[in-house]
Amino acid sequence: MIEYKKIQKIMQDIKNSQEIDLRIDNAKIADVYRGIFFEGSVCVHQGIIVGFNQEIQAKQVIDAKQAYLVPNFFDGHVHIESSMLSPEKFAELVIPFGTGTVIADPHEIANVKGLDGIRFMIESAKQSLLDVKFMLPSCVPALPFEDAGANLFAQDLAELIDNENVYGLGEMMNVPGVLMQDEAVLEKIALASNRQKMVDGHSPNLDGAALDMYVLAGVRTDHECTTVQEAMDRIQRGMYVMLREGSAAHDLVNLLPAVNSHTIKNCLLCTDDKQCADILQRGHINDSVRLAVANGIEPIDAIKMATINVADAYGIKHKGAIAPGKEASFMLIKDFENCMPHAVYIKGNLVAENGKYIANHHAEPNAKLTTLTHSMQESMQTILPEKLLLTIPSKKARVIRVLPHSLLTKCEIMDVITDEQGNFVFEKNKGMLKLAVVERHKKTGKIGLGLLHSEYGLQNGAIATTISHDSHNIVVSGDNDADILFALQEVEKMGGGIVMVSQGKVLAKLALNIGGLMSSAEPQEVAKALKELYAVAKEHYKIWDKADAFMTLSFLALPVIPDLKLTPQGLFDVTKFHFVDIDASK
Amino acid sequence: MIEYKKIQKIMQDIKNSQEIDLRIDNAKIADVYRGIFFEGSVCVHQGIIVGFNQEIQAKQVIDAKQAYLVPNFFDGHVHIESSMLSPEKFAELVIPFGTGTVIADPHEIANVKGLDGIRFMIESAKQSLLDVKFMLPSCVPALPFEDAGANLFAQDLAELIDNENVYGLGEMMNVPGVLMQDEAVLEKIALASNRQKMVDGHSPNLDGAALDMYVLAGVRTDHECTTVQEAMDRIQRGMYVMLREGSAAHDLVNLLPAVNSHTIKNCLLCTDDKQCADILQRGHINDSVRLAVANGIEPIDAIKMATINVADAYGIKHKGAIAPGKEASFMLIKDFENCMPHAVYIKGNLVAENGKYIANHHAEPNAKLTTLTHSMQESMQTILPEKLLLTIPSKKARVIRVLPHSLLTKCEIMDVITDEQGNFVFEKNKGMLKLAVVERHKKTGKIGLGLLHSEYGLQNGAIATTISHDSHNIVVSGDNDADILFALQEVEKMGGGIVMVSQGKVLAKLALNIGGLMSSAEPQEVAKALKELYAVAKEHYKIWDKADAFMTLSFLALPVIPDLKLTPQGLFDVTKFHFVDIDASK
Repeated sequence: MIEYKKIQKIMQDIKNSQEIDLRIDNAKIADVYRGIFFEGSVCVHQGIIVGFNQEIQAKQVIDAKQAYLVPNFFDGHVHIESSMLSPEKFAELVIPFGTGTVIADPHEIANVKGLDGIRFMIESAKQSLLDVKFMLPSCVPALPFEDAGANLFAQDLAELIDNENVYGLGEMMNVPGVLMQDEAVLEKIALASNRQKMVDGHSPNLDGAALDMYVLAGVRTDHECTTVQEAMDRIQRGMYVMLREGSAAHDLVNLLPAVNSHTIKNCLLCTDDKQCADILQRGHINDSVRLAVANGIEPIDAIKMATINVADAYGIKHKGAIAPGKEASFMLIKDFENCMPHAVYIKGNLVAENGKYIANHHAEPNAKLTTLTHSMQESMQTILPEKLLLTIPSKKARVIRVLPHSLLTKCEIMDVITDEQGNFVFEKNKGMLKLAVVERHKKTGKIGLGLLHSEYGLQNGAIATTISHDSHNIVVSGDNDADILFALQEVEKMGGGIVMVSQGKVLAKLALNIGGLMSSAEPQEVAKALKELYAVAKEHYKIWDKADAFMTLSFLALPVIPDLKLTPQGLFDVTKFHFVDIDASK
Repeated sequence: MIEYKKIQKIMQDIKNSQEIDLRIDNAKIADVYRGIFFEGSVCVHQGIIVGFNQEIQAKQVIDAKQAYLVPNFFDGHVHIESSMLSPEKFAELVIPFGTGTVIADPHEIANVKGLDGIRFMIESAKQSLLDVKFMLPSCVPALPFEDAGANLFAQDLAELIDNENVYGLGEMMNVPGVLMQDEAVLEKIALASNRQKMVDGHSPNLDGAALDMYVLAGVRTDHECTTVQEAMDRIQRGMYVMLREGSAAHDLVNLLPAVNSHTIKNCLLCTDDKQCADILQRGHINDSVRLAVANGIEPIDAIKMATINVADAYGIKHKGAIAPGKEASFMLIKDFENCMPHAVYIKGNLVAENGKYIANHHAEPNAKLTTLTHSMQESMQTILPEKLLLTIPSKKARVIRVLPHSLLTKCEIMDVITDEQGNFVFEKNKGMLKLAVVERHKKTGKIGLGLLHSEYGLQNGAIATTISHDSHNIVVSGDNDADILFALQEVEKMGGGIVMVSQGKVLAKLALNIGGLMSSAEPQEVAKALKELYAVAKEHYKIWDKADAFMTLSFLALPVIPDLKLTPQGLFDVTKFHFVDIDASK
């Protein structure tokens, strides 16, 4: 919100001086209200658009040279953590692509650090030029029994719901909880609803009467649609549908047939999860706009889905359009084939040029960062090899099998060869991998063990990562115990991150010093480290080309996606919704 | 806003009983989100739409017989006072036409009774089934020097701005005040803006840089557009444009070319001023919808302008569409040629059928009514004939000339014949009428006198009315002093209203017991009385057929419409913006 005294000050200033700060002439101005581009000037004073007067004096006059002048884009739903960058670095990365506002759900860091993690995100983001509106994570942990770093109830979220940067409740993934009217779940929705704040949703495959109930319960958005029918079912019920284009999920093009002159108002663009290397390479929401236009959407319509529609949905009144009273945050862009702004303005200041962040403004390292770096509570240095013993007396094991290009797994019952004590031995089970999930938040000492089918393909080493949805314990996998233990020790030394080891040596690593999820390094550095990790995965480990080496591991610990997952408490059969033994006879 | 505990109760109830209150089958459901009508059922429980499940058990099942099921209409901007009915009676009148929500600006009663008048409207409306959202009148009085019943500053409005039924600031007519940055004016806008509440506008003919400033200042709507260009200029700047169709102003059809698939989101329907006899005869917002459809707008688009677009503009989240979680307030309608609902539901209850209000709910007479009836402070019984003497020594007078079908007047300099004392005499100035505006709010004793050109045509009598915009003093006109005085006495006896007298007898009258503006009688009675008044105007008085006998008089006291107007302080030259003498030589 813009305080009215600021508007008064601007009006007074213009009246007194008959001069404004900035006039941009000769632009093709995106008019999201009339659905056209019109040629003209945009006048800016003290960071606010004050009109279209071509004749007013200005301290600075810029010739747009017939470029399009477009409001900065919104990301309708994003987990900043998925970029692997701190909020400040994320800001500096996405701003040059024309992103000015994001609706962020700090779900990942909340699973590690609870309210402190959310506060850290809010405070860090505040120091950047990116406008970050926060949705409070609704499902921490993802399931009640999980070993997450925090357990957030409505009374916890209540501490932050009235924060001026908090716009509502984050994606309500607990669909059964909503439908069964779980009191704790509805309390969280009530927290946002009673303040007329937004409640985001997450409801793949839901339809009919169940979808009615989910909407009745107060959920207003969904970014999980993958079919036109799903999108239409939700729009019909007044929901906002996010057309997602992220690193892993590419739903935008599939959903475009749902966009027409009526439904467009309820269609928003989002990335959800987009990793920094992808952003560097392909862009951010501007890439979604480009893709929409390339697939037949009128540029002004694509712009609407990336600007005013998000602003309207989330009640952000002073943004998303080029009009008097709106924030002077816009970009100049030559064409929509590339959709790459050559100049990005925030509050009237040029902050990025030709893809480079040029603002003098750089966020100070956040004071709270120090507490967040120490996210590893359990000392990996003391884990004994005995902890990795996997006993399967019946010699029939439940093995996790990764499916191609999917986060789903299959539970495969396989014969395994053991030693005399009934313990799994690598040598006699060619290619089969051990998998461990090690609790890292509360020094519980819990280690869950499992077997991963050889198809995943890791050879001669181990990978450990502190990104493991949603509780973000440590997932480690390898083809020998020594490397598994070494990887755990190394990941602890880094203070969290991803490490790849082989025969007692580190082959590649990426330190994620903020909660084991994000790096405070430069995006380019993080992207470079990631590239090296992928190179090792491919060339040294020979990991299956139908799996993403790291994301596959990261989701093996999430006990809400079928079939078989591993938690610090052991194997979990998601379909049957209970823990199972590694020994298939049990 | 619907409290979340109500939603929880509904969900719980359905879960426990597997039964709902009401299911309407076989309807063509207006889907304002997808822009279509779809065939199906609508499920209602405890006044809320809970979904489209055709199979759920219901206590009551209604066959819509393929009728359209449409959300109840919104009137985007209305002065209820112009209906001449109390809020409760207005509610019972418009509900059968499918109006469920109105955005009301109690500007007229506020000019008479100030905050008490507004509170009366809010409290009265609350007792009706109509949902009335209030905008606080921004311009009371219309001009600072006026003899209105109240003078409302920002600090006065502050008492009501946080009322749950107050949605913002009413039409900001003081355009020069905004543009000149009058502190008192901007303070009022700040009051609404700083709470993210709406600020309504009123800016005929404004364009370019001045319009930019008006929008920058925070004004968000306009219902005064008469041309497509005006509408487009405002939509371009993000304003909401109201397509007005009232008793006097018929702008809707002219503005329809401004409505397209992009702009429609910013287009709303409103009546502004519609008198009860017109509503009875032609309908309310349903008549606007009918007219739009008759002029080529798709029915679903016309419905959007009358429902969801208004709800969105004013941030009314639980209305304006048929979707889970929305209030079960809708109508059944057979066709859009007549656009007359045969059944109207509010919160799940049938409240009107075939044009008849059938709800058992009738508002109790408002306790505050008694104070409002005594709006006449000056005793007319004591006015001496001498007070009506009109001295014009130069025998050249400034005469008000009414223009055909217009609220504008002309200042005509005319020769008049006087007696020896220089006083105007009726007998020798054939057809010329005396006009007086008598202050009625604060016992100031002020009487402004003027002359009305014979074209208006009142013969053999006098008319007095307490409706006289915007200060609502008494306007009286006649062709002899005795009837003028008698009319003043009679209008006082009634406690306000309209009275027509001739030779000491009352020919027709309409008592407006609430502030001299509204009647607490039944709409049919008021309409009947009005009809009689018009008959007398035509048959007895022979009033000009190019003037509305009463509205013409009512606007002769409004010193913001050019050229020459009359106030209790005397003649006012609106163009020169100062008082002038009746004697043209002065």
